[in-house]
Amino acid sequence: MPDIMMERVDQGNFPELVTLIFALAEFEHLTPPDEEGVKRLQEHALSPKPYFEAYLARSDGRAIAYLILIQTYSTFLARPTLFIEDIFVLEEFRWRGVGKAMFLFSAEKAKAMDCGRMEWQALDWNVNAINFYERIGARQLNEWVSFRMDAAAIDRLLSK
Amino acid sequence: MPDIMMERVDQGNFPELVTLIFALAEFEHLTPPDEEGVKRLQEHALSPKPYFEAYLARSDGRAIAYLILIQTYSTFLARPTLFIEDIFVLEEFRWRGVGKAMFLFSAEKAKAMDCGRMEWQALDWNVNAINFYERIGARQLNEWVSFRMDAAAIDRLLSK
Repeated sequence: MPDIMMERVDQGNFPELVTLIFALAEFEHLTPPDEEGVKRLQEHALSPKPYFEAYLARSDGRAIAYLILIQTYSTFLARPTLFIEDIFVLEEFRWRGVGKAMFLFSAEKAKAMDCGRMEWQALDWNVNAINFYERIGARQLNEWVSFRMDAAAIDRLLSK
Repeated sequence: MPDIMMERVDQGNFPELVTLIFALAEFEHLTPPDEEGVKRLQEHALSPKPYFEAYLARSDGRAIAYLILIQTYSTFLARPTLFIEDIFVLEEFRWRGVGKAMFLFSAEKAKAMDCGRMEWQALDWNVNAINFYERIGARQLNEWVSFRMDAAAIDRLLSK
């Protein structure tokens, strides 16, 4: 495993986070933030009350992976849940334990926050990721289906 | 539609929230919080920095439904997401627009918070809920699979 250091995103390394977010969007065939979005992302990441916690994994001086953590909640457990919004390792640095190191980092945070669970989502074609998640002891929640209402659908609902 | 009022959960109506959470757990065949859990829930709901926002829908003096909202985030949209952790209407008050009213309430919050989306999950056998969500304009995210690591799995991961 490469020698990696986890570091919190700040003003100085924020551009490296943006580069990695763009790489994840490309990998997932999804749309990355536009210029205005990058400005909002910086505000949301670095404000005194940040909207999420962002971390970079650095190896040999280079940011090779990132992690976005959010605290959600389970009313039935009556404990916070650590939700992993993004976890991504640059393609050329995979299969060396970087993802595992980021899960260990997240698991330690979850313990410190007294969380009852960690949860995250994966795209169904990302078989490598899905196999990895099962190998580290995660369970696929096949009985739950996810729903989304985008901004246009929210406006339609409100205008009816 | 019954005349309903949405109210934020506070010290006074907290016991009514607990009753509704127990009713949802029974409906979903899941385990409700134990006595210690109810104490934690109260702390987490009513602390100066609450872990979630809880609302009751009241009709004719009775709390007939509840809603738990959490702010999550989308790095690609660079906007917060309004995540609906729980939405539940007592069985005898369904099919009268109470759920719709709670979605309108949530949609207004999402707009005020400048959210890019609302998201939530449903159990796959809850066909009535799923049909309702599609009717109000939500999209089922079939391409995403959810993963969970419970506290025991987190401990196993950390002890390896």
